[in-house]
Amino acid sequence: MWTLHHFTLCPFSRKVRIVLAEKGVEFTLEEELPWLKSDELMDMNRAGQTPVLSGGKAGPIADSIAICEYFEETIEKAPLLGSGAAARAEVRRLTAWFDQKFYAEVVNPLLTERMFKRLVMRASPDSAALRVAARAMAVHLDYIEYLLGDRRWLAGSTFSLADIAAAAQLSVADYLGGIDWRGYRDAKTWYATVKSRRSIRAMLPERMAGISPPIHYDKLDF
Amino acid sequence: MWTLHHFTLCPFSRKVRIVLAEKGVEFTLEEELPWLKSDELMDMNRAGQTPVLSGGKAGPIADSIAICEYFEETIEKAPLLGSGAAARAEVRRLTAWFDQKFYAEVVNPLLTERMFKRLVMRASPDSAALRVAARAMAVHLDYIEYLLGDRRWLAGSTFSLADIAAAAQLSVADYLGGIDWRGYRDAKTWYATVKSRRSIRAMLPERMAGISPPIHYDKLDF
Repeated sequence: MWTLHHFTLCPFSRKVRIVLAEKGVEFTLEEELPWLKSDELMDMNRAGQTPVLSGGKAGPIADSIAICEYFEETIEKAPLLGSGAAARAEVRRLTAWFDQKFYAEVVNPLLTERMFKRLVMRASPDSAALRVAARAMAVHLDYIEYLLGDRRWLAGSTFSLADIAAAAQLSVADYLGGIDWRGYRDAKTWYATVKSRRSIRAMLPERMAGISPPIHYDKLDF
Repeated sequence: MWTLHHFTLCPFSRKVRIVLAEKGVEFTLEEELPWLKSDELMDMNRAGQTPVLSGGKAGPIADSIAICEYFEETIEKAPLLGSGAAARAEVRRLTAWFDQKFYAEVVNPLLTERMFKRLVMRASPDSAALRVAARAMAVHLDYIEYLLGDRRWLAGSTFSLADIAAAAQLSVADYLGGIDWRGYRDAKTWYATVKSRRSIRAMLPERMAGISPPIHYDKLDF
C-alpha cells in the first residue's frame, strides 16, 4: 500500500490526495512539517518538499505533477486530463496556472504570514504582504469567473486536474481566511460543487493545530 | 506552421525549442520581451509569459510543460519521457526540479541581476544576491554530479526531457556568466555531450543585444 507523506496545509499534498481518492487508490497518510526537512523526507525527495508517495511498486515518487501523471497513466478510472491532445494541453496549462501562479501570488504569502510566522517564527503577519495577496486573490477570482463564463468546469466540459489543482489551492487559501467570496457567484457555485465531491469533502474536517479556519470553510453551502 | 513566441534568454522557451527540434517540428520564431507584456502575448497567454505556441491545429498553447507533453503525445519520434510509468515519473520529477527549483534559486536571480537590471532598470546588480545564486549553483552542480554517478543521462539510461530542461536552464545561467565549471568533471562532460546535439547547438550562436556571454559559452569543447 502507498504512503503519502503530506502536510495538512500543503496545497500540492491536497491535490495528490484528491487525485488518489478520485482514482480509487488506497493510501495511508504520514504527516511531515516541511520546514523541519526531516531526514526521511530528504532521503525520499532531495527537494525537501511534500508530497512524496512511497511504498508502492515504483520507488518513492516525488513532485505532485509526476505523481498525478503517474496515476493518470496507470489507472484508467476517472480520467483527469481530458480527451484529445488539445484538451489535455488546456488542462495542463490551467493546472500550472494554479500550481505556480496562484500559489506564488496568493497561497504562499498566506502560508508565510498566517501559518509559518504564527507557528514557527512567533512573529506578527505583515499586513502589507496580506493586502497584496488579497488583491491578487481578487484577480484570480475574476479569472475563474471568466473561465466559467462559457465552461462548466475550469478547463472545459468535464471535471479535470485543473479543477483539482484549483480546489487544492483555494481550500488552503480559504482555511487561512484569504477568500472573500462575495460578488463571485459563478466561482462560488463551482467551488460549492467541487467541495461536495467525496474526494474533497473528506479532507475538510481536518484541522491544523493552532490555526482555526473561518466558520464557512467546511460548509458545503457557504 | 507553428509560431513560437519566445524570448532569447527565457529558459522555458529554450526547453520548448529543443523539444520541437528533437521532434522534427517546423516552426518560426517570434521574439517577445516578456516584461513588456504585449497585448498579443497577453491575448494568447493570460499569464503574460513566454513561451506560447500559436498557429497550429490546436489554438495557442501556453505553458512550457503543456507544450512539451502535447508533442510527446502527438509525435512518436524521439520519445522524451522514457518508457514505463516509473521512469516517466523520474523524468517529470527532474524536469520540475530544473524548471522550478533551479530556475528560482539560480536562473531567475541571474536574469534579474545581470539582464533585467542592466537592460530595463539601468541599475547595478546586487552582489549579495549574485553570491547567493552562486552558492545555489554549486549545490545544483553537486546534485548533477550525484545523478551522473550511476546514470548516463540525468534521469536514467536515455536522453530525456530532464536533460533538455536542465540544458535549457544551464545554458541561460552560462550565458550570464553564472557557472564556474571547474571541479565538476562529470557535469561538464554531460553538458558538452548535450551541447553537441543539433537541437541545442543551433541555439547557441544567438546573442541578446547589450549582453555578451563568456567566451566558452558556445564552445563545444570548453
